Amino acid sequence: MLFFMNDYGQGAHPKILKALEETNFDNTCGYGDDPYCEKAKDTIRQLIQKPNAHVHFMVGGTPTNVITIAQLLKPWQGVIAPKTGHIYRHETGAVEATGHRVIIQPTEDGKLTVDMIDGLVKEFEDEHTVFPKMVYISNTTELGTIYSKAELTAISEYCHSHDLYLYLDGARLGAALTAPGNDLTIQDIANLVDVFYIGGTKNGILMGEALVFVNEELDKDFRFMIKRHNNLLAKGRLLGVQFQALLEGGDDCLWYKLAKQENDMANYLKDELLKKGYEFVGNSVTNQIFPIVTMKQHEELQQKVLYEVWKQIDDEHISIRFCTGFGTTKEEIDELLKLL
Amino acid sequence: MLFFMNDYGQGAHPKILKALEETNFDNTCGYGDDPYCEKAKDTIRQLIQKPNAHVHFMVGGTPTNVITIAQLLKPWQGVIAPKTGHIYRHETGAVEATGHRVIIQPTEDGKLTVDMIDGLVKEFEDEHTVFPKMVYISNTTELGTIYSKAELTAISEYCHSHDLYLYLDGARLGAALTAPGNDLTIQDIANLVDVFYIGGTKNGILMGEALVFVNEELDKDFRFMIKRHNNLLAKGRLLGVQFQALLEGGDDCLWYKLAKQENDMANYLKDELLKKGYEFVGNSVTNQIFPIVTMKQHEELQQKVLYEVWKQIDDEHISIRFCTGFGTTKEEIDELLKLL
Amino acid sequence: MLFFMNDYGQGAHPKILKALEETNFDNTCGYGDDPYCEKAKDTIRQLIQKPNAHVHFMVGGTPTNVITIAQLLKPWQGVIAPKTGHIYRHETGAVEATGHRVIIQPTEDGKLTVDMIDGLVKEFEDEHTVFPKMVYISNTTELGTIYSKAELTAISEYCHSHDLYLYLDGARLGAALTAPGNDLTIQDIANLVDVFYIGGTKNGILMGEALVFVNEELDKDFRFMIKRHNNLLAKGRLLGVQFQALLEGGDDCLWYKLAKQENDMANYLKDELLKKGYEFVGNSVTNQIFPIVTMKQHEELQQKVLYEVWKQIDDEHISIRFCTGFGTTKEEIDELLKLL
Amino acid sequence: MLFFMNDYGQGAHPKILKALEETNFDNTCGYGDDPYCEKAKDTIRQLIQKPNAHVHFMVGGTPTNVITIAQLLKPWQGVIAPKTGHIYRHETGAVEATGHRVIIQPTEDGKLTVDMIDGLVKEFEDEHTVFPKMVYISNTTELGTIYSKAELTAISEYCHSHDLYLYLDGARLGAALTAPGNDLTIQDIANLVDVFYIGGTKNGILMGEALVFVNEELDKDFRFMIKRHNNLLAKGRLLGVQFQALLEGGDDCLWYKLAKQENDMANYLKDELLKKGYEFVGNSVTNQIFPIVTMKQHEELQQKVLYEVWKQIDDEHISIRFCTGFGTTKEEIDELLKLL
Repeated sequence: MLFFMNDYGQGAHPKILKALEETNFDNTCGYGDDPYCEKAKDTIRQLIQKPNAHVHFMVGGTPTNVITIAQLLKPWQGVIAPKTGHIYRHETGAVEATGHRVIIQPTEDGKLTVDMIDGLVKEFEDEHTVFPKMVYISNTTELGTIYSKAELTAISEYCHSHDLYLYLDGARLGAALTAPGNDLTIQDIANLVDVFYIGGTKNGILMGEALVFVNEELDKDFRFMIKRHNNLLAKGRLLGVQFQALLEGGDDCLWYKLAKQENDMANYLKDELLKKGYEFVGNSVTNQIFPIVTMKQHEELQQKVLYEVWKQIDDEHISIRFCTGFGTTKEEIDELLKLL
Repeated sequence: MLFFMNDYGQGAHPKILKALEETNFDNTCGYGDDPYCEKAKDTIRQLIQKPNAHVHFMVGGTPTNVITIAQLLKPWQGVIAPKTGHIYRHETGAVEATGHRVIIQPTEDGKLTVDMIDGLVKEFEDEHTVFPKMVYISNTTELGTIYSKAELTAISEYCHSHDLYLYLDGARLGAALTAPGNDLTIQDIANLVDVFYIGGTKNGILMGEALVFVNEELDKDFRFMIKRHNNLLAKGRLLGVQFQALLEGGDDCLWYKLAKQENDMANYLKDELLKKGYEFVGNSVTNQIFPIVTMKQHEELQQKVLYEVWKQIDDEHISIRFCTGFGTTKEEIDELLKLL
Repeated sequence: MLFFMNDYGQGAHPKILKALEETNFDNTCGYGDDPYCEKAKDTIRQLIQKPNAHVHFMVGGTPTNVITIAQLLKPWQGVIAPKTGHIYRHETGAVEATGHRVIIQPTEDGKLTVDMIDGLVKEFEDEHTVFPKMVYISNTTELGTIYSKAELTAISEYCHSHDLYLYLDGARLGAALTAPGNDLTIQDIANLVDVFYIGGTKNGILMGEALVFVNEELDKDFRFMIKRHNNLLAKGRLLGVQFQALLEGGDDCLWYKLAKQENDMANYLKDELLKKGYEFVGNSVTNQIFPIVTMKQHEELQQKVLYEVWKQIDDEHISIRFCTGFGTTKEEIDELLKLL
Repeated sequence: MLFFMNDYGQGAHPKILKALEETNFDNTCGYGDDPYCEKAKDTIRQLIQKPNAHVHFMVGGTPTNVITIAQLLKPWQGVIAPKTGHIYRHETGAVEATGHRVIIQPTEDGKLTVDMIDGLVKEFEDEHTVFPKMVYISNTTELGTIYSKAELTAISEYCHSHDLYLYLDGARLGAALTAPGNDLTIQDIANLVDVFYIGGTKNGILMGEALVFVNEELDKDFRFMIKRHNNLLAKGRLLGVQFQALLEGGDDCLWYKLAKQENDMANYLKDELLKKGYEFVGNSVTNQIFPIVTMKQHEELQQKVLYEVWKQIDDEHISIRFCTGFGTTKEEIDELLKLL
């Protein structure tokens, strides 16, 4: 079977595995209180040019989102998100499990705008209503789209003039920053948001996300929160070791390279499909693309390829998702193209 | 520095790393829905001789405890545990975070008895009081002690005649089953409790625990619960791959070997210290031992050895914890003995 | 000041106060375990013609909604509601505080349809998404509209063929059942939904709602849930005494009379305003009406009348809410009409 | 049947009912935002001589305890309480329902001491353990005992030098302050604790507790918390009206009179029983007493008297609780004495 199901289908890039092996027999304290994590945190602070940022290594995207939201919100406050946002769409109510509402906004392309946010903020009345105190966005979005610098700046200015926290889910931040047409840098991100994470799981490591509190006052007692939400990994240094290997080297680091490779493969596939006359749902420029196929094609294709169904278009057509990972090769795509 | 701080200071046994490498470039579906996990589940069902048991691979001990408790209890029910139990002592209120009380019992040795459980059950009155519906024990306990077959059988009979769930935290179950004087087998465990887990993190793998619902009706919709409590690992197969390598081979599997090695090292150290006249807190027979040293010794020792402080005995004395891991060597212990 | 702010501005109808006085010096057990509550429960079972229904007297509408939802849903399940529904709009996230999502649907008139419900049900995928297990509707809605028998029957059939609970918030159920054009009886309600409540607070008593589990299996251990959610009133008989006085007499009971009086007053006001040429938001036929006034009128009116602002229509116009209570008189309305 | 079951068996003192009647037809805004509540708050501030204190009227004792704790604690913090404390013993885990641990201490008499608190504070280690941030005491305790000024002062000093909140549950504060041997005034209470409540439900009103944040910075956004925990009473003025009638008049207010009457009746009963040779559990000086009777006496007595069983002493003896209320008369006690 060809595999275009997701970007976490393989283990890790060999450099990552090698780093784990080389440090395997060192003995360190548990729970991330070790020199490997310290070094990786420094690497991140340098990369984003924020010497005072606070970094926490987390096991996965959902705990990162959930615990950060629980950290920043008071019990009666909620977080604004696009309806397609991961915290609303694919976390089984994990945010609500901490007592907070996800205040949703339908969108065309998975992206929030200042007007949308403002509309939801204005729905607040008084102590009988949930107070929207945070804005959640993801870049890339769950639809593969990206924010421009102008868009993110506008949202940032709105949030900060309205005393809202701005949180960016960076599960696929690497893909966003290496996408064609992107004009944001990771330093821009760090300047514009309060908290974000550098996604590792979908970018070539075994598991892990690097959560960055740019505003370093916001993470007070955060380790209590991680532990209480049962996400403090015993062998925490595994995360530090991997992120060091992933991010060392600045602009040349493995993270960018793998992300660019994912995008290149997806865009090669997209271009070829466009040539063949396929249409797409959405406007992805990154490693997830959503071609529309006939039901008959879909029936045949799924015998030979693993992918996700996106949504039914009409009785005859369906859109599907092809997702490339750090290990996807041109050969695999050419194989896939033969089937389409 | 010599390292006797914990049993999760190193990465993984080389066999485990090798298994991860060998499967690294396979593409699989995420979230544990893959052939490696399936195979490892079969291996476990065979090991415990329960062909219908349901197995879930979890990232760590705290989420395993917390999500299992949340799965089995109704909102107004609580779980009985020794005051030293991990869920009470070292999980920062993660059980309470799901709305459940941990109903505690002071003990001498970390072990519950039928009388203790019965006393707490009788404190229940009516809808104004928390209903105790589950008993939590750990084997080995947090004090390194173990349950005998007679003790566990008595607790099991009490629980099942009083309609209580019996849950066994097996973070160090390998150490328990390979301890001197132990008369329990893993098949006994599976016969006597409703749910338990086979600890991996403290027994030589990178991370992971294998949660077993012996009573297979109890895990209905459990994957919703794992996800909602943000613990469904994206690359779930990493856990299956590791557990297969750890548990394949039945009585000869790596899990027992590493656990026995941990115990042997700790008991060698204990015997030598007894010869030197040291006294101990508690009656551990496994890989954690709690010698009493003078404050002066403690001050000097901590310059050269990493270990945990257990508790102050009096103004002059303190008990400390030496913990051995899968990689602890006789040479390291001999080095340590020179300092004592 | 004229008062058209809400339907809970006054204390209680004199008959209710008299009943409280007459029983004042009786001594009864607490928490609703008393003969007054038993008698009132019988009265309700007779009124709704469900001899096996289980009734609980609750202090207010929000705890009734929240605790019922928490009772019926598993942690990872959510409740479908119109965006205007009280549980979403005016309970400060109290449902989410118990860990459940309110899955919302925008509507024109505060009413759900089968198509809307079906659309949300179809958004469910698997263990990564919240499972919609309950439908919340209110009658009257928060916009003063009512469900017809055909509409409620269709929703009921959909819910029960899709294994969803159907819950009806009856804060203003009296107003609904006595509204012009209504074709539902309280027996119909009891036949069509799983759980509903008979609102007292907004219908002439000091406080209290009578929650009815028509499907009597659903309230297992419910008193634990009420207590755990801190809503078991110590002097619980106060609720039983009031509901007995409110509901005794079948079709002639005080509840219907007061509700009809509220509707009559509101509809008299609406008719007069229509004659004067006013337009309204929504299509209320009950005791809340939403006329549109100019901003200038609004500025003057609020000097002399207490009412709620509903929503801004445009720069020049605003819709406001006039709400009648059990004590609202024709004289007060005539006074109000002089100002409009 | 004679009634010695509890102190909330009757409705309200006639003065309270009269106040409700006299204000019944006034129209006020809901949720406690009305002149009656404002006036009652002023009355309380004057009574306790704290002109800046913030007062909230709550429906009952459990929501008062729970919401105050939820207001003051961060998610990973817990509250220290005696094992007999209401929040641990009789609230069905309502505190844990908000995610917080009740950290318990066994006591002889229901009273905490500085040493006990200090012992629990010292159990805290780091981010793996629950942080004790608040001390809960009740006065009178659930065993009828009271704190002396010296005892409360010592606890207060400890708490404030260790950055802990001190919260006093005043469900029976009236009984405490009018007990024989008491040397505390309500002004002392207000000087020594951070938050406390003036109990109304068990002191002659229909329902309600007046929660006082002496440190007025602690109740920031508290109304959001009340609403979110579904306890904002629609006709909130009912609480203000009752508390004004209960507390107006300073040292001569009805609250003290009714409490003293309750104590006098209980102490008369206790003295007579002592003369007859009865022994008691505990050392109550207030309106709950715990005589020891034979099982045979108990069997006969419960045919004619309603009371609570306290605890089994041995096979032959049982201790029972007689509780007096604001309406208990000397005649009733003389009747009871005839049976003993």
